[in-house]
Amino acid sequence: MDNTRKVFREIKADAMLTASPDLRRYLTGFPSSFGFVYTDAQETVFFTDPRYAEGAKAALKDSYISVEVAQSEDSVLDFVKSRKIKKLAVPLERITLPQYQKLRARRFRIVDSMPAFEDNMCFKTDVEVGFIAEACKIAESGYLDFLGSVKEGMTENEAAGLLEYCMRRHGAEDRSFETIAAFGKNTSVPHHAPGNTKLQKGMPVLLDFGCKYGGYCSDITRTFLFGNSGDGEFKTVYEHVLEAHRIAAENIRAGITGQEADAFARDHLKKYGLDKFFTHALGHGIGINIHEAPKLSARSLEILRNGMVFSIEPGVYFEGKFGIRIEDSVVLENNRVRSFMKTDKNLAVL
Amino acid sequence: MDNTRKVFREIKADAMLTASPDLRRYLTGFPSSFGFVYTDAQETVFFTDPRYAEGAKAALKDSYISVEVAQSEDSVLDFVKSRKIKKLAVPLERITLPQYQKLRARRFRIVDSMPAFEDNMCFKTDVEVGFIAEACKIAESGYLDFLGSVKEGMTENEAAGLLEYCMRRHGAEDRSFETIAAFGKNTSVPHHAPGNTKLQKGMPVLLDFGCKYGGYCSDITRTFLFGNSGDGEFKTVYEHVLEAHRIAAENIRAGITGQEADAFARDHLKKYGLDKFFTHALGHGIGINIHEAPKLSARSLEILRNGMVFSIEPGVYFEGKFGIRIEDSVVLENNRVRSFMKTDKNLAVL
Repeated sequence: MDNTRKVFREIKADAMLTASPDLRRYLTGFPSSFGFVYTDAQETVFFTDPRYAEGAKAALKDSYISVEVAQSEDSVLDFVKSRKIKKLAVPLERITLPQYQKLRARRFRIVDSMPAFEDNMCFKTDVEVGFIAEACKIAESGYLDFLGSVKEGMTENEAAGLLEYCMRRHGAEDRSFETIAAFGKNTSVPHHAPGNTKLQKGMPVLLDFGCKYGGYCSDITRTFLFGNSGDGEFKTVYEHVLEAHRIAAENIRAGITGQEADAFARDHLKKYGLDKFFTHALGHGIGINIHEAPKLSARSLEILRNGMVFSIEPGVYFEGKFGIRIEDSVVLENNRVRSFMKTDKNLAVL
Repeated sequence: MDNTRKVFREIKADAMLTASPDLRRYLTGFPSSFGFVYTDAQETVFFTDPRYAEGAKAALKDSYISVEVAQSEDSVLDFVKSRKIKKLAVPLERITLPQYQKLRARRFRIVDSMPAFEDNMCFKTDVEVGFIAEACKIAESGYLDFLGSVKEGMTENEAAGLLEYCMRRHGAEDRSFETIAAFGKNTSVPHHAPGNTKLQKGMPVLLDFGCKYGGYCSDITRTFLFGNSGDGEFKTVYEHVLEAHRIAAENIRAGITGQEADAFARDHLKKYGLDKFFTHALGHGIGINIHEAPKLSARSLEILRNGMVFSIEPGVYFEGKFGIRIEDSVVLENNRVRSFMKTDKNLAVL
């Protein structure tokens, strides 16, 4: 069954209208920065602007989705109105107040389509898992090339650009988010923006990166030492973070909550007094978006199920000193976690 | 005067609360993916999560902005409530319906801060113009390096990644949008997503790219031939598009509308029957966002003013054959257009 039908059948409405790029991509498989997908019980129409019309028609020519050119939201709403639609489903959390007011002015009864999107998007089909697996493979291949090219004196910015280029050379459509490259004490900032810090011998290096393939994301973090720092504390903490990762990956089962998953890693770090430096969640769902359901956090009551794809990424950060994060993208299948990643997670000293 | 004061003084409200990353960046100068900026008549507080707290404190330590850690929107709204704020300004077009309902539930009277942001963000300070000029210089330096490395057989994806890497090597913080690299007939899709098409002799190449520096964007498009195609039509159309670009750049003045600016290029193309293939606007404002006010389109009544930075990018697209776009980022100053770009816009045959 195609995705428009999957989502639409869960919604009690006459039609649904979807404008967000990610949700549009999920429904059509076609990437675009402007457009609307209209679905009712009979048909699906993808409205896009002239810039995308040619590409969309070519990409969707064998699909059940018809492509129409639309210059504005108003012309799309005129179309919906012409279909005598009364109850219209839209993803409320993506709708701004002015957009909502525009829909209300046309007297649509509005219901929320977002829960139906989330319910469906978190369960990956075999095709989607295949895309994510390929995105992971490309990311790791790019990473291995990068390791062969990393040089003393390189800036974080250059490293981020080089890693992204390496992924493209292996077939990445694009990066899946802004690559994080942190050197030295910058590794202690979990979401460090790459800057002009230059790589020096003995520095820890943290790379959080991923790419897209078939529109789907990979997400991976590796932390290594660029030359031996002789810092015993770094190596000890690394082992604890890696063990937290392993324990989580081995113990997560279908049916547990995101909170229980998070606790596997957090409880292990607690034994060493490191839990208070683990300042973020264990993981998040991955798909078309780099962050989707489910959440694997200390407060998440979402149930993990077979078919879900998510990250496992324990991290420990000592402000102004160093940080360590070790992340794989994984799928929950046959009641167990299977990692997409093949690269060694033991501490590398380049 | 700092940006929080500039925006706040235009708003008739007790306080303003800003959550969008771009607007937060404008107010604080600090990049972050989560946070809230609170401003009232006395103070500005940047609430961010623990991942950014260390970086934000370091970056803002000499500023008028205090940094607080917040784990959730609710705790920030509690803070605003504790300040006895009644009338609260938020950027309505960035507020989703659930967020609006949350604000209303706390009995704030809501007014829109977005017009005040747009009014201020479109006029660039000398510092902002300096950042954009540097972002343009880096983009062009990267482009020239790229031209020295482009090779037959390279895919569009590789070309996009290589160009981005070249920009990083010249100091780019990041690309300013997803690089468009189109080869051959793919150039006829104005927003082509780079794919696996390989570069062959005689192909036209369209590259639409830019980078960020100091948080500000550059935007540039160049179209060239990879080896002589012997296609006289391509060369003729190229000259018309280039002339349309020149005419617009020479005639745009402070005080005219976006529509009048667009017409300079469109009217020139019309002489050759090419206006119907010019399927997008002449240009758009550029700043922290790659698309901001003003619009230079056939329908825009916005007045162009000194201090505005925007693109001039006429383009002509023959579906399934080829497309040509020539774009500079420019600033309107002393009543005239000054381009940030130095690279030759005459047709290059590599």
